[in-house]
Amino acid sequence: MRKFMDENFLLYNDTAAELYKHISELPIIDYHCHLEPRAIAENARFRNITELWLGGDHYKWRLMRHNGVPETHITGDAPDCEKFAAFCTTVQDLIGSPVFHWAHLELKNYFGFEGVITAENAPRIFEHCNKIIEREDFNVHGLLRQSRVEWLATTDEPIDSLEHHKRLQRLRRGNFGELSCEAPQRHERLRRGNFGELSCEAPQRHERLRRGNFGELSCEASQRHENGLPTVLPTFRPDTVLKAGRDFPDYIKKLSAAAKIKIADWHDLLAALSARMDFFAQMGCKISDHSLEPPVFCRTTDNAAAQVFKRLLAGEEISTQEATAYKTRLFSWLGGEYHRRGWAMQLHMGVQRDNNSRMLRLAGANTGFDCIADDSFSQTLALILDDLESRDVLPRTILYALNPACDDMLAVMTGGFAGRGIRGRVQWGSAWWFNDSKTGIQKHLTTLASHGILANFIGMLTDSRSFLSYSRHEYFRRILAQQLGEWVERGEFPSDMARLKKIAEDIAYYNVRNYFRSSPSSILQ
Amino acid sequence: MRKFMDENFLLYNDTAAELYKHISELPIIDYHCHLEPRAIAENARFRNITELWLGGDHYKWRLMRHNGVPETHITGDAPDCEKFAAFCTTVQDLIGSPVFHWAHLELKNYFGFEGVITAENAPRIFEHCNKIIEREDFNVHGLLRQSRVEWLATTDEPIDSLEHHKRLQRLRRGNFGELSCEAPQRHERLRRGNFGELSCEAPQRHERLRRGNFGELSCEASQRHENGLPTVLPTFRPDTVLKAGRDFPDYIKKLSAAAKIKIADWHDLLAALSARMDFFAQMGCKISDHSLEPPVFCRTTDNAAAQVFKRLLAGEEISTQEATAYKTRLFSWLGGEYHRRGWAMQLHMGVQRDNNSRMLRLAGANTGFDCIADDSFSQTLALILDDLESRDVLPRTILYALNPACDDMLAVMTGGFAGRGIRGRVQWGSAWWFNDSKTGIQKHLTTLASHGILANFIGMLTDSRSFLSYSRHEYFRRILAQQLGEWVERGEFPSDMARLKKIAEDIAYYNVRNYFRSSPSSILQ
Amino acid sequence: MRKFMDENFLLYNDTAAELYKHISELPIIDYHCHLEPRAIAENARFRNITELWLGGDHYKWRLMRHNGVPETHITGDAPDCEKFAAFCTTVQDLIGSPVFHWAHLELKNYFGFEGVITAENAPRIFEHCNKIIEREDFNVHGLLRQSRVEWLATTDEPIDSLEHHKRLQRLRRGNFGELSCEAPQRHERLRRGNFGELSCEAPQRHERLRRGNFGELSCEASQRHENGLPTVLPTFRPDTVLKAGRDFPDYIKKLSAAAKIKIADWHDLLAALSARMDFFAQMGCKISDHSLEPPVFCRTTDNAAAQVFKRLLAGEEISTQEATAYKTRLFSWLGGEYHRRGWAMQLHMGVQRDNNSRMLRLAGANTGFDCIADDSFSQTLALILDDLESRDVLPRTILYALNPACDDMLAVMTGGFAGRGIRGRVQWGSAWWFNDSKTGIQKHLTTLASHGILANFIGMLTDSRSFLSYSRHEYFRRILAQQLGEWVERGEFPSDMARLKKIAEDIAYYNVRNYFRSSPSSILQ
Repeated sequence: MRKFMDENFLLYNDTAAELYKHISELPIIDYHCHLEPRAIAENARFRNITELWLGGDHYKWRLMRHNGVPETHITGDAPDCEKFAAFCTTVQDLIGSPVFHWAHLELKNYFGFEGVITAENAPRIFEHCNKIIEREDFNVHGLLRQSRVEWLATTDEPIDSLEHHKRLQRLRRGNFGELSCEAPQRHERLRRGNFGELSCEAPQRHERLRRGNFGELSCEASQRHENGLPTVLPTFRPDTVLKAGRDFPDYIKKLSAAAKIKIADWHDLLAALSARMDFFAQMGCKISDHSLEPPVFCRTTDNAAAQVFKRLLAGEEISTQEATAYKTRLFSWLGGEYHRRGWAMQLHMGVQRDNNSRMLRLAGANTGFDCIADDSFSQTLALILDDLESRDVLPRTILYALNPACDDMLAVMTGGFAGRGIRGRVQWGSAWWFNDSKTGIQKHLTTLASHGILANFIGMLTDSRSFLSYSRHEYFRRILAQQLGEWVERGEFPSDMARLKKIAEDIAYYNVRNYFRSSPSSILQ
Repeated sequence: MRKFMDENFLLYNDTAAELYKHISELPIIDYHCHLEPRAIAENARFRNITELWLGGDHYKWRLMRHNGVPETHITGDAPDCEKFAAFCTTVQDLIGSPVFHWAHLELKNYFGFEGVITAENAPRIFEHCNKIIEREDFNVHGLLRQSRVEWLATTDEPIDSLEHHKRLQRLRRGNFGELSCEAPQRHERLRRGNFGELSCEAPQRHERLRRGNFGELSCEASQRHENGLPTVLPTFRPDTVLKAGRDFPDYIKKLSAAAKIKIADWHDLLAALSARMDFFAQMGCKISDHSLEPPVFCRTTDNAAAQVFKRLLAGEEISTQEATAYKTRLFSWLGGEYHRRGWAMQLHMGVQRDNNSRMLRLAGANTGFDCIADDSFSQTLALILDDLESRDVLPRTILYALNPACDDMLAVMTGGFAGRGIRGRVQWGSAWWFNDSKTGIQKHLTTLASHGILANFIGMLTDSRSFLSYSRHEYFRRILAQQLGEWVERGEFPSDMARLKKIAEDIAYYNVRNYFRSSPSSILQ
Repeated sequence: MRKFMDENFLLYNDTAAELYKHISELPIIDYHCHLEPRAIAENARFRNITELWLGGDHYKWRLMRHNGVPETHITGDAPDCEKFAAFCTTVQDLIGSPVFHWAHLELKNYFGFEGVITAENAPRIFEHCNKIIEREDFNVHGLLRQSRVEWLATTDEPIDSLEHHKRLQRLRRGNFGELSCEAPQRHERLRRGNFGELSCEAPQRHERLRRGNFGELSCEASQRHENGLPTVLPTFRPDTVLKAGRDFPDYIKKLSAAAKIKIADWHDLLAALSARMDFFAQMGCKISDHSLEPPVFCRTTDNAAAQVFKRLLAGEEISTQEATAYKTRLFSWLGGEYHRRGWAMQLHMGVQRDNNSRMLRLAGANTGFDCIADDSFSQTLALILDDLESRDVLPRTILYALNPACDDMLAVMTGGFAGRGIRGRVQWGSAWWFNDSKTGIQKHLTTLASHGILANFIGMLTDSRSFLSYSRHEYFRRILAQQLGEWVERGEFPSDMARLKKIAEDIAYYNVRNYFRSSPSSILQ
């Protein structure tokens, strides 16, 4: 029997252990998350472990509800220690759950607590964590630094002022200012091999530099990773304008104000969105994001869409068919804009939101009542992608689906739009949300390897609202190393450690770095 | 190499073996089956192993047809020994099939036959089993007693007289009468620790009593389990009234007669169904059951449904839209009634029945020609559940789908309606029908553990028409113990045997007992 | 750690190794492929390994596109050595991909190259293979002979002249002429046990003959396998006439010419198709094939279909409803014709073709841009099958779906139409296309074993356009042997090697031989 979650957690053979060791310390690029820009800008601190763990985590809330914990102790106003006890009581029996592993990894990595979460231990853990949380350096910046986050992308509304991103940019420029004079010297020393003053990790990294993998890694980047803040980029997510739901005229007014463009017709709408994209691009944005619930497409014209928009603007009700025409043409135009700007495009599919209208009323959206939609969408998705590809404007695209029954369909779909000389051009995104478990990640990796090229995968993201979620990268990297190791141990792939390490580190870090290459560097100027 | 189906069958590590040993002797609560109430009431005996095994088991019939066995030897009038030989010839090659395991477990558990089923062995097995079947104590009551069935729920029509349930209640009252005076004394002895007269199993059980798990287990219950009959409860399954198919006016007449209420309109219909539910409740019913083929829902009114019902009553044809309106409102009302009565509600989805019209004509329904429906239904199901939840009348609900492609969707859906302080309130039901295999159960357990709380699972049911099917509980418990053990052996969960045993025994027995708690005890008064 | 792809590749226990050894040398029946009849008839040779590997293999093209290889080096006019280098560079990182295994098996089996494919090795492999390709005996006939192909079925249009099949038949008759006088003598010697002049394999085969499995294997068949060409049969695939797409009137003219029947109405259409089926039957055809994209069905009449056909013939546009009526009645008639002729019927479902219209224009159909369709079709498929079964004219049928989310649905569906005393009557076809990977085949085998009778499975086909793809039979047989072995090693099936070998060899060879029995023998007359 193996020890509970020790250093070889999820690593069942020597190849896997060696590969994990090789990638465990690589930086993290979190290209899709829901962290609060304000919290990062303000370098937020936390009241206690309850706020940190249970303040906004719908994964944990779901499980507590499953366990019969009353809502007072979930999103209600019960005392923090009681909420925490209710959570620990729920966790103690969570055999086979990713939340069990995440929670223990987080306790270990951020609090140095190696015990087991139980109802009995709850008070001890509460006290232990809260003492650490009180420390000066326990804040958002410290957590991001400790997590080795190189850059991350938040998820933002087109009408957002991005004020917190601005503040973060100023902060970063300041940091780099201080560091810049030292950096070239340090880079020189690295080249000459003088490791005296560097951490024990440096020789290892120097080796990698010599192997040529780190060629394009500027000394600023490593500096930033070691000493400074991660770059924080906005993501352009225009769901509201595409959905055209209630209060749409109101939303358009806000968009108009943000873009400083009067919006009276379709062309104004595009102009305003274009202005906002320009602004996002100035702020370093290189990724857009859409939640397609579900994907829709029809053969129609801009004229038809413009007519629908006019009616929407007037607050009129529109038919499903009209909505499809409007969405089709607006999305088609947006895709082209992303391509023109060199942005990547993320499409999230298969979510069925707000199923419990009573709890939506009481606790709001994104509080743990979303589910998996099981509709078919392969036809529509292909039409959407083909519409862009046939006009030569398909951006690099990442496809995600919440329903694992779509895994093979989606993995294969990426091949239908691969090519144009771009490695990994259309990606099947990381095991998403409910699929972010050991079995979910394993299935994602083996399915991707069957239908495409696993070695080109841009890897893990957190999609999280929590600053402790970076332990999920450890979880992913362990599962990845184990899967690679297993193939080798079973004689299905040559035991060529150089190649295997290259594959592992590419998936863990370098692929995503290259996929969004222009983005972090461009804003460093 | 491990021995064929020995005592460690499906148990590949020590933790698994220890956990299985811990739960193997626990009573069985079979909360959903298709056993014949008449056969139980009459304490039926069996002509021979052919009648017992092949009299009504569509699983076996399917496989025999796959194997080219002529229908004469399946549902036809071939001699019993020939039918049995044809079955054994089919079984001998069934590598990887759950039926292979079930058949061997049944032979071992009920007939003490430990050999392998082959065409060659068929005559020997036929003779061996038939000798045992001839014994005085080989009857329905004996089988249920030997299987440790504490209570079971049959599946019944609202218009059913439940006469066999009545007879069984009288029978049980008689039994308890005899036992009642002895019981308190025995309970006392248990408390005092005098185990002299009890079986070797008793100290173990006493231990559990001391641990507090058995707190609410009355002495009657243990008596009944050891000496008497299991409680047999009816389940209210109003599919016919919801489907409103051919002969509907006729059916309504029968319902009217059963309820002793004249049914002329919608209100009469509800009154009649309410009367029948009252009667079912008197008979101990605590569970309803629906086969939704598929789930439907629309926004409509009782008035609209009442109009449709009037037309149905007049024998008129109705449109799909009208049918949906009628079903929506009737189901919505029924759900509220279940909640008001404290009943649980089972929803079975994803079945496509009677695909082979020729064989439906020749052999009737439920003879092995049903298939998996692959339609989408997440949207409709959520609307159905939300309709009840938003009115505060969602009963405890168990969701089953025949299509394993829906597994994750359904497991996640339970979380959308969890809460209200009820542990395990909405359940994803046990791997159902075609999924009741080793891989199907494994997938159910790991998927449930990923998306919810496995430890709260109410576990296995037989869904069977056969009195030997209780071996499937052994099958389930072995697979469960193995899965729990594997997680521990791999270091994914602490090796805390007390907690693990608690989780295992809860899933095997205690959870279901608590989930339907009010039901068995209330009818013991 | 196991050695990379050695003789025990994919075989992880002794039982598996023994079973694989038993079936590894059995002949191959490739009952569904896309090999070019012309290339077989002309005994084509190959320019080099690039033509052989990259001349038409969309699997490889897809992966190269994924890897950013420019189209010039895929379907374009780059030099062959560069294309090959680009492919090797792509392969070297293909961990977890079936293409990685296929390519290495092909290099080993047909070129005796046991090294690893890497960018570095590319020139060496290119040279090594090309030298072998230059040899006199490296041609299509040699490859088929070396692959032990007993017979194969190409995929052909009803209007095809089958001229290459004719030429092949003449070729074969010639061969058999030479051999025929020797054959009876040889058969006699086999019976008498004189193995002197035979290969070392003969005694083993003789054993099997004595065990009775080879009863019906004529001496011609073994001769043909050892000395001559495989039988090449056409498959009747009337997709164009069913789809009734663009240029339909033109197609009907060609059909008319091929059948020598003037087609003015529905009855003429059936007469012409019947004439073509007669011709195909004369040429040995025993299998039809349909790509249902998706399956459709409605209750309608031949009269209605005839009206639609008239409009199609006149070049008029028809509605979706009319198309469904036409397809329903034509398919229904075709199914009956297949049954009457003793043909088997293949139904391929779940493909979404030509998703990338730009590449369709540039590179044509079947170049790697097809995807998985995720529509529901269980209802329609059941109606289609029931329509035939209820009229007593359902042929032996093989169902394939590209979407693995349909696996269980399809496996169970076969049981809805099993019976009629025919063993394995309706089959769930081999893991198809994108599912033809290690995990895909494993899932197919275990799912089939759960829902049906794995031992009756007619096994592997290549579905390939390449003459080297027969290594996929080795791949399949290894995975099969491993799965059988694992069940035995885990104590889930008795370690009865005689039975296990029988099951393994049946799935690998004898089942398919019996399933299409009438076909190869009938054309040997």
